Amino acid sequence: MNYHGRLSKLRQKLRDNPFDTIWILQPENRRYFSGFKAEDTQINESSGSLLINENHCLLLTDSRYSSEAEIEAPDFEIEIITHDLIDELPDLLKRIGTHKLGFEEEYITWASYQRLTNKLSDLALPLELIPFHSIPEKLRALKDEMEIKAIEKSADMISAILDEVIIKLKPGIREKDVAWQIENLAHEAGADSLAFPSIIASGPNGALPHAVPTERVLKANEPIILDVGVKLNGYCSDMTRTIFLGEPDQHFKLIYKIVRKAQLAALNIICSGIKSDQPDTVAREIIKEAGFGKYFGHALGHGVGLATHESPRLGPRKPITLKKGMIVTVEPGIYIPGKGGVRLEEMVLIEQSSSKILTKANHFYEL
Amino acid sequence: MNYHGRLSKLRQKLRDNPFDTIWILQPENRRYFSGFKAEDTQINESSGSLLINENHCLLLTDSRYSSEAEIEAPDFEIEIITHDLIDELPDLLKRIGTHKLGFEEEYITWASYQRLTNKLSDLALPLELIPFHSIPEKLRALKDEMEIKAIEKSADMISAILDEVIIKLKPGIREKDVAWQIENLAHEAGADSLAFPSIIASGPNGALPHAVPTERVLKANEPIILDVGVKLNGYCSDMTRTIFLGEPDQHFKLIYKIVRKAQLAALNIICSGIKSDQPDTVAREIIKEAGFGKYFGHALGHGVGLATHESPRLGPRKPITLKKGMIVTVEPGIYIPGKGGVRLEEMVLIEQSSSKILTKANHFYEL
Repeated sequence: MNYHGRLSKLRQKLRDNPFDTIWILQPENRRYFSGFKAEDTQINESSGSLLINENHCLLLTDSRYSSEAEIEAPDFEIEIITHDLIDELPDLLKRIGTHKLGFEEEYITWASYQRLTNKLSDLALPLELIPFHSIPEKLRALKDEMEIKAIEKSADMISAILDEVIIKLKPGIREKDVAWQIENLAHEAGADSLAFPSIIASGPNGALPHAVPTERVLKANEPIILDVGVKLNGYCSDMTRTIFLGEPDQHFKLIYKIVRKAQLAALNIICSGIKSDQPDTVAREIIKEAGFGKYFGHALGHGVGLATHESPRLGPRKPITLKKGMIVTVEPGIYIPGKGGVRLEEMVLIEQSSSKILTKANHFYEL
Repeated sequence: MNYHGRLSKLRQKLRDNPFDTIWILQPENRRYFSGFKAEDTQINESSGSLLINENHCLLLTDSRYSSEAEIEAPDFEIEIITHDLIDELPDLLKRIGTHKLGFEEEYITWASYQRLTNKLSDLALPLELIPFHSIPEKLRALKDEMEIKAIEKSADMISAILDEVIIKLKPGIREKDVAWQIENLAHEAGADSLAFPSIIASGPNGALPHAVPTERVLKANEPIILDVGVKLNGYCSDMTRTIFLGEPDQHFKLIYKIVRKAQLAALNIICSGIKSDQPDTVAREIIKEAGFGKYFGHALGHGVGLATHESPRLGPRKPITLKKGMIVTVEPGIYIPGKGGVRLEEMVLIEQSSSKILTKANHFYEL
């Protein structure tokens, strides 16, 4: 990956912002700029952080990760924290000449911020802490060629896995077992892991957009939502199909048609230059007009990359301009409480005047 | 589980603290008091939070989790957040009569705190925000009988899995494949999931206490660390064995003996009433005297329960008094960079005048 290019873009951002050094703890941001792959098990069990300014790039980690850090982040100077990050940070900041430190406002806990503030004041160190929002995330939203290839591979892998699973589905199989098949196939195919716990939601369970697979067995003719993804070489995929083992009833036939129509309409307009709320509006209008507006409660889609959910969001709030090189999901859904749901999700690469679907277009019905 | 008892203990704590309502976002804390099982995928993708005061217990979640919330947390009033938690929080706080809100200082991000502060000030709501630290964690450290049974079951399951895996180990198998076997066996046995990604660290990889399983194949006579655990009905287990396929060389024979001696010495003194740094000191002294002090870089152990790592910590810092009903790991290790490591880990239940080992005592060597 092009870490030099990313660092120089980040340094450009530093010049446009009121701080001279940026402190990065969020795991995907950390990996994006350094290559360091470790994940955090919890927010208070960090495996490392980056300090980047005009002249230095430091990776702060502890002895557990020192070997990985050296191999994975060769452009970074590795600093081993022996005791406590916050206690040792002021000395490191002094050494690299930091006066104003930018921190990730959505990834620093109140306690860490407070401890660092107190520490700096104890040391009478004239160092200002300045929150920032979404600087790495905005860079990550635009994928370069190597990233696009990596995400295409990840999408190919989950498409193939879903093909294999769907062909074998039969009434009587438990949701849990379908999820486990997917996990097995991902392992066999060489995925790093699943991108997120698979959602296998049959019948009424499909009315819960984030259902956890249960002991419930699949039944004939009901809608079954499969929302799945893998992580491959760090990059995520995310796709959803709704299938029927047999024939849907008239109600779900109608719902399926509307969701598919909404998805195709949104896909049809996505290209560089449009606003990120437009595809959502187009899809939502179709669902609303058909009388199902209140059953589509979530946004139309989201960016996918090192994280399953990242910038940009395709929804009504805070629209931005979509650009060539962004990769997003398009996933309208209709969820009828107690009855079931239909969601259809594609991953698309935004191009100059159109978009390219990365997930394989199998398992759609023409009802 | 005894949620009523937990809530009344928490309410007792409220009376001893300078706030009238407690806001709980941390997923294990949330589950501990309410039964609500959902996990958070990221700190900024919360699946819910609790508001508890003398007269109310509310579970705030969104439409994705409403059905689970109602089933899993029957003692809580479910409030569906339709748009944004921070925006909707002030009204809810007003409704339940909150004047001083305690928040988890290690689980609120700087941005959320700031947004809530601004929101309250915009509304001119006279409501004070007061950070707290470890109130739920201290209650969670003491396990009740049902929890002890649940953790025993989890420890039994991982012990049986490790037995099955170790018997089949042979030189030539990749670390990754051993990890996958464990995942398969955990699934077959009916675990919720692994408690954490298995550590299978052979030869030099064993020098990294938190190694990720690699493509490296196991070799004869080298130390192989297996650090594994499952989550069963929400409760974690955590155990480590170091095994040799063949005979260790003199160096690792010595290291193994020292680690085992340190572990047994620590296990021997653990009981209700001693300080949490004492077992660490006893084990560390043995390793130090043998000349390996600098190769034992982590604390001796940690509590285990709904989380793999929780209170109390068995280490030199901030000692507390150990009590009957706590469950902790005892896991000394010696790690020689470039060569390999030995770590041995048991889970023990602290009793009145001794401790009970929960992990099965197989696969130790008498060298």
